[in-house]
Amino acid sequence: MKVLIKNGCVVNADSQVMADVLVSDGIIEQLAINIPLPDGCEVIDAQGCYVMPGGIDVHTHFNIDVGIARSCDDFFTGTRAAACGGTTTIIDHMGFGPAGCNLHHQLEVYHGYARGKAVIDYSFHGVIQHIDDAILDEIPSLVDEGISSFKLYLTYLYKLNDSEVLRALQRLNDAGALTTVHPENDAVITQRRADYLAAGLTAPLYHARSRPSECEAEAVARMINLARLSGNAPLYIVHLSNGLGLDYLRLAKARHQPVWVETCPQYLLLDERLYLREDGLKFILSPPLREASEQDALWCGVHDGSIDVVATDHCTFPYQQRLALSGGDFSRCPNGLPGVENRLLLLFSAGVMSGRISPERFVSLTSTLPAKLFGLWPRKGSIAPGFDADVVIIDPKASTTIHHSELHDNADYSPYEGRVCQGQIRHTLSRGKTVWSQGKFVGTAGHGRFIRRQPFDCKTFNH
Amino acid sequence: MKVLIKNGCVVNADSQVMADVLVSDGIIEQLAINIPLPDGCEVIDAQGCYVMPGGIDVHTHFNIDVGIARSCDDFFTGTRAAACGGTTTIIDHMGFGPAGCNLHHQLEVYHGYARGKAVIDYSFHGVIQHIDDAILDEIPSLVDEGISSFKLYLTYLYKLNDSEVLRALQRLNDAGALTTVHPENDAVITQRRADYLAAGLTAPLYHARSRPSECEAEAVARMINLARLSGNAPLYIVHLSNGLGLDYLRLAKARHQPVWVETCPQYLLLDERLYLREDGLKFILSPPLREASEQDALWCGVHDGSIDVVATDHCTFPYQQRLALSGGDFSRCPNGLPGVENRLLLLFSAGVMSGRISPERFVSLTSTLPAKLFGLWPRKGSIAPGFDADVVIIDPKASTTIHHSELHDNADYSPYEGRVCQGQIRHTLSRGKTVWSQGKFVGTAGHGRFIRRQPFDCKTFNH
Amino acid sequence: MKVLIKNGCVVNADSQVMADVLVSDGIIEQLAINIPLPDGCEVIDAQGCYVMPGGIDVHTHFNIDVGIARSCDDFFTGTRAAACGGTTTIIDHMGFGPAGCNLHHQLEVYHGYARGKAVIDYSFHGVIQHIDDAILDEIPSLVDEGISSFKLYLTYLYKLNDSEVLRALQRLNDAGALTTVHPENDAVITQRRADYLAAGLTAPLYHARSRPSECEAEAVARMINLARLSGNAPLYIVHLSNGLGLDYLRLAKARHQPVWVETCPQYLLLDERLYLREDGLKFILSPPLREASEQDALWCGVHDGSIDVVATDHCTFPYQQRLALSGGDFSRCPNGLPGVENRLLLLFSAGVMSGRISPERFVSLTSTLPAKLFGLWPRKGSIAPGFDADVVIIDPKASTTIHHSELHDNADYSPYEGRVCQGQIRHTLSRGKTVWSQGKFVGTAGHGRFIRRQPFDCKTFNH
Amino acid sequence: MKVLIKNGCVVNADSQVMADVLVSDGIIEQLAINIPLPDGCEVIDAQGCYVMPGGIDVHTHFNIDVGIARSCDDFFTGTRAAACGGTTTIIDHMGFGPAGCNLHHQLEVYHGYARGKAVIDYSFHGVIQHIDDAILDEIPSLVDEGISSFKLYLTYLYKLNDSEVLRALQRLNDAGALTTVHPENDAVITQRRADYLAAGLTAPLYHARSRPSECEAEAVARMINLARLSGNAPLYIVHLSNGLGLDYLRLAKARHQPVWVETCPQYLLLDERLYLREDGLKFILSPPLREASEQDALWCGVHDGSIDVVATDHCTFPYQQRLALSGGDFSRCPNGLPGVENRLLLLFSAGVMSGRISPERFVSLTSTLPAKLFGLWPRKGSIAPGFDADVVIIDPKASTTIHHSELHDNADYSPYEGRVCQGQIRHTLSRGKTVWSQGKFVGTAGHGRFIRRQPFDCKTFNH
Repeated sequence: MKVLIKNGCVVNADSQVMADVLVSDGIIEQLAINIPLPDGCEVIDAQGCYVMPGGIDVHTHFNIDVGIARSCDDFFTGTRAAACGGTTTIIDHMGFGPAGCNLHHQLEVYHGYARGKAVIDYSFHGVIQHIDDAILDEIPSLVDEGISSFKLYLTYLYKLNDSEVLRALQRLNDAGALTTVHPENDAVITQRRADYLAAGLTAPLYHARSRPSECEAEAVARMINLARLSGNAPLYIVHLSNGLGLDYLRLAKARHQPVWVETCPQYLLLDERLYLREDGLKFILSPPLREASEQDALWCGVHDGSIDVVATDHCTFPYQQRLALSGGDFSRCPNGLPGVENRLLLLFSAGVMSGRISPERFVSLTSTLPAKLFGLWPRKGSIAPGFDADVVIIDPKASTTIHHSELHDNADYSPYEGRVCQGQIRHTLSRGKTVWSQGKFVGTAGHGRFIRRQPFDCKTFNH
Repeated sequence: MKVLIKNGCVVNADSQVMADVLVSDGIIEQLAINIPLPDGCEVIDAQGCYVMPGGIDVHTHFNIDVGIARSCDDFFTGTRAAACGGTTTIIDHMGFGPAGCNLHHQLEVYHGYARGKAVIDYSFHGVIQHIDDAILDEIPSLVDEGISSFKLYLTYLYKLNDSEVLRALQRLNDAGALTTVHPENDAVITQRRADYLAAGLTAPLYHARSRPSECEAEAVARMINLARLSGNAPLYIVHLSNGLGLDYLRLAKARHQPVWVETCPQYLLLDERLYLREDGLKFILSPPLREASEQDALWCGVHDGSIDVVATDHCTFPYQQRLALSGGDFSRCPNGLPGVENRLLLLFSAGVMSGRISPERFVSLTSTLPAKLFGLWPRKGSIAPGFDADVVIIDPKASTTIHHSELHDNADYSPYEGRVCQGQIRHTLSRGKTVWSQGKFVGTAGHGRFIRRQPFDCKTFNH
Repeated sequence: MKVLIKNGCVVNADSQVMADVLVSDGIIEQLAINIPLPDGCEVIDAQGCYVMPGGIDVHTHFNIDVGIARSCDDFFTGTRAAACGGTTTIIDHMGFGPAGCNLHHQLEVYHGYARGKAVIDYSFHGVIQHIDDAILDEIPSLVDEGISSFKLYLTYLYKLNDSEVLRALQRLNDAGALTTVHPENDAVITQRRADYLAAGLTAPLYHARSRPSECEAEAVARMINLARLSGNAPLYIVHLSNGLGLDYLRLAKARHQPVWVETCPQYLLLDERLYLREDGLKFILSPPLREASEQDALWCGVHDGSIDVVATDHCTFPYQQRLALSGGDFSRCPNGLPGVENRLLLLFSAGVMSGRISPERFVSLTSTLPAKLFGLWPRKGSIAPGFDADVVIIDPKASTTIHHSELHDNADYSPYEGRVCQGQIRHTLSRGKTVWSQGKFVGTAGHGRFIRRQPFDCKTFNH
Repeated sequence: MKVLIKNGCVVNADSQVMADVLVSDGIIEQLAINIPLPDGCEVIDAQGCYVMPGGIDVHTHFNIDVGIARSCDDFFTGTRAAACGGTTTIIDHMGFGPAGCNLHHQLEVYHGYARGKAVIDYSFHGVIQHIDDAILDEIPSLVDEGISSFKLYLTYLYKLNDSEVLRALQRLNDAGALTTVHPENDAVITQRRADYLAAGLTAPLYHARSRPSECEAEAVARMINLARLSGNAPLYIVHLSNGLGLDYLRLAKARHQPVWVETCPQYLLLDERLYLREDGLKFILSPPLREASEQDALWCGVHDGSIDVVATDHCTFPYQQRLALSGGDFSRCPNGLPGVENRLLLLFSAGVMSGRISPERFVSLTSTLPAKLFGLWPRKGSIAPGFDADVVIIDPKASTTIHHSELHDNADYSPYEGRVCQGQIRHTLSRGKTVWSQGKFVGTAGHGRFIRRQPFDCKTFNH
């Protein structure tokens, strides 16, 4: 089965070229100028469009059980939304399992969640919810099974203390796994939350006030240093939302430490004044939205290369559920924003079309670097012969207004409702198969496969 | 004659307070809660509004002769526009005079320009267009006459070379004058412009390409070091438009050097993609508009305090004149943008209302620090007893859409046409006299006085 | 009783002048050129010498009980050594008391230690060894009694966790007290120490390996952020020993946060290779000596102003005692170095005479800024009328070789044995009374008085 | 002809290994543990020693005519001294030729200087002493002949102005040549020198005062920006002597610009107070020695990797000649210091043995990175099969006191006279031939060959 994408501008992380792309049996076979049409070949006309590696969203939470609720996108609706937004691979952060469960417990649960449902390829990040010898000894077998990254939490139910973090970093490093971390200082949150609740300050704004920027920046610096002390273990900071934390990361990078950092569209585009709106509950997530000045600082990092990845942290709790569970009290509202469908377009519009970043850098942030960091390279993350034919075609001349009614997730709202984006996702291919075209979802549950990821390899990077 | 401003939120550079302001004979007499109404006193109700020190725009070019044209706002239309936008003092950068003229020549010309015309108070910056002993010896007498700042150009007709800059810096420092500088590398511009013209590349975009960011950043670093070598002479960089130059300034500030920097709304809000529009000529100014990523860097500086002042560089050449003179060739188009009327509202909307900066910092950037740097302190720049009653009242709840047809300058377009600003300039007082109220200009030519400025005094600042 | 110091070069933090200093009844009465000799006045000839404010050493540990031992300098031998080295005020960090004791318990103990013994003026820093409401409520009364700074430990027996640190910072800030902190990450130390001991690695070098630079840098960043979150509480980092921590502090200072930092001569001049010497135990202290490259980073901070204070952390455990207690095992060796007598001369030689810093900056680091930070200003820290006549006279032409046999503390070694310093402490006056002259100690126990310090006042500083 | 170096610790820029090195016909054949001794093979015992790639000194001035004098080391004495100090390749900066001469003129002159004289391998940097089309067109032929780097001067007789620099950078970049530059602001020097001479201030200290740090930092920033504007031309800053310039370079590196920087032992170890000595003329060079605080800043750069290369700028004018020519007037004293023989040992002692840098970084700074930057890679700069057998053997346990009487250049003094270095150069091999052994020079004039260098290739580096 062959597909020929004609007349587009093919963008990789290090190049742009006007060329055709020939796909054969789901694999990119050729990238060349004016490829003659093979017999029986499907043709996609990309005239005037960018042809880019399909998006890789390394931060989603489908189906996640957070105690008071379960996120309402499963691996079908979640990956469907992703596909419609040009994303062709997701890596889901597994949620916590029952207290004391081993690592395979959640892996099996998640394989169960995804099997037969996913529209695009997927993998999972492991989660370390407690530390003991058995857990640490179990890590290598998960890496063998393709789970080459794990997450630690410094706050929430199963937060780890510094001693546990040190043990985890060392063993993950030894096992060839990348450590990812949710960095927020638990003591600050606990104290502030208690103070606000005691004072009856439960409005959404106090969600932001209870976990301020410095609470995140502190934890970023802490993790940088603990990683350095754990045999210079590679470290990946998720969902960075503030500029001081970014400055700490810049210092680490200037010292040649292997650290990388992700931010999300919501931190680049939304700010804490939204908590003052009547529907402020819609924007409860952690870390929270920040002062608008933090956006400028983050954009500087996106531009100068100190931010490496843009992912979504997609985690859907409908507004009606938020209202019902919380009664307006931020502390009883489940945390998370939907967004997996909007990532590429939001960044394309506010980044590339606004003139802030080049198309190449866009590809690096959304696909190539995620692929390299999380063991998908050299299979995904580039339009090049031998790579999976995961492709997104973006039309820079058209524009798109975001309305939740037109999105494909299970939410009942979009945090970006009404926002006009310059650009349009015209076409998405997952391993050569069209899953989104001309405004229609045409994928099928079960097409997506679990990807056994490679162990982390620092040599892939220029550190 | 008394005026009482009631019920507003009075903002200074270091405080906010809900208080009334009593003005007597053009001077602020009292700032207190619930001031009783004196007999025969005019009352201004500022309920729900910010009451702030009137704007001080330290960078305008009224009436300036640039060789191929003369800017079309004079001291009446220019200060009228300023007043309508909440600005109560301007300091105009004198233009070049005839070759070889002395410093008083232009001062007299400019006194002539302004006399009887200005609606609000004003002063002038001197200009050093050539260096010889006579010019250097003449400086102190201008400082005595209230001209305590001068400008050097590193490009344009009367550019100074490094030797001349050194001599100027030393003598200006000795005389108690602040040196301001237009920093662009002339050799870069000359070479690039010649190359583009030779290749027939005359479209507006090549204006930007002919004077890139690095050309400005270079000159900033050069001036920082030459000032340091001239007895640590105080230095003020005008219209900074790029982030690398800002980083150089941060290094100088970290070393406790007395340097300050101004940017303008156009560099914070517009970007070089405007040169691709059919009416791109409207945006020809120097330094040119930049890549959008530079805006983020500049906003970071506005937020963190490394940028000190926001001024306009208002210099009006109508679009029709631009077209006629240039025939579309950037090199024959006069340089400059109008904007004196929009500065406060643009910064209020994109800064304060967007959540990037506090109201206090807004006052510091637009009024207090300009007053201190340019010898207007402690007469202007604060709402405090004894200060001139120069006041602007801003309503944060209303919004304003910028249309040139509603502005008060002599231009035939606005670079910000159609932009919606959150906020509205409700009232402007110049020394206690209302000059703008409820959307009407009510000032009079000749009300504005020339302000003899104090010599520069480094001790006013925390360096 | 009058004293006239003639012909010297009087140095303050912001000036140098060739002038005489007249002292009357322990107070500086006059600073002028060629003061005529009053009748019956003692004359000190300072020809060719610097006349500087007496040193203020804000970090000593006299008499401290560390569980396995008590430091062997008491308030007599300790202040005697200080006086002989040109220091005229010390602020001692009180040690821990019995578990659960209140704040006054240790204050009374320390008043008892010092009374009748001190040769020069003194005060104490409080210590917060546990947190409960009673302790927090007790703070203001200590501030009233002149104890306007307190110390928190993040490691050691009475370490505080983040929640406790937050409570302490808030209440200390409210009470007008400056929070000082010993910043090291306890989890790192605990883990590494256990690993080394389990592996039988007990040599002194493993003391350094068990508390690496990143362990300190982490805690510095943590404290910066926790202080920021506690109402922007003023923060003073003690004994900084590494460059990354300094970079974190530079970021905080650039954001205008009220933070200050102290380093000590041992971190500027000694490095971890000393642990490889046979007598490596002599250099056990915490934080430990570092790689030599850290010295360059710290000197850069001393030069550029990002380091504010040089103190000693003087804490004497004789080498014989170290050997006896530890048997060579670092984990059983008491921590601390003597040095109160050498601080001024070491910094004068390696700083001023090496060309790294000016005499003015030397005064700022050793006397003026300590006085301002710790509530001794405007009584100590300057040679100016009305200040206490605490004076040190340094001869820059003579040189001094450090031999423990010639020092005045109770140690049995000096970490600087054999080091040649350019400069000589010629004379020390404590409130007008000579306590050291021409190589002889001539002070008396009991001359020194407890100084009730002023509350911390942020406005004294340019933040 | 085979040589076996046994039992040493072989150090490359990225590794250390205890191994033997087998050399065959001047080329390294094998690097392995316990290589059996081939028949008739010379054996060198390196027990307890470091075996490192021979030093590459990319900055010497042999035989250079500076107008008022000619440097007194020729290619025999200069390379002899180099060999005795462990350096096995030098790249000499050609001096100016007659006004208007073409590029080949000086190349022929220098081939003549070196032919038959050099003891070790050598090459030359071209020099651009004026700019016209003929010169620019001539560049590629020199690159073809192995001259792949050129120097520009911003001061001195044949300084280039900014326009000329731009033209040079572009053409050198196009031709595959690396641009090196002597960065000092000529206007500053000219003005200060004239002022001092007019005031009769001719002592050596005024040499330093006439070209202060900022004068160099300015030119560094200028070159960074001009290079960026010349197609991002690769740039190499020679003999950096100050920290502010280094900060400018750090900013450029953080923006991924291809810039590199060299410093020299004299800037790391000597300071401007030497100009106050009676024999201060011995230390006249440009840029001059700096305040001691600059050393700390430079060492930080050597440590953290922002400084790339340590070379010498060896240029010998005997003290007697300095005295005779100048009569003590700095402005008539030829500029330059000898030092080619001391580079490795000074950096080894103050860098590696002081604990500031690792042996690997030492090799990178003195051999590997110079080889890569200047087209000697992959032939020189590593101990690896296939590379030239250029080797230095250093004994870290022995120490060496520098006395000019024991050096091998033609100077009559050493700037490092009496300095004790930890370490000893035990053995130097040039292409397998011993040229220095056990304190004896055993090389021969004419053994050294001209090395045709490869064009500059940015891809060799991680930018």
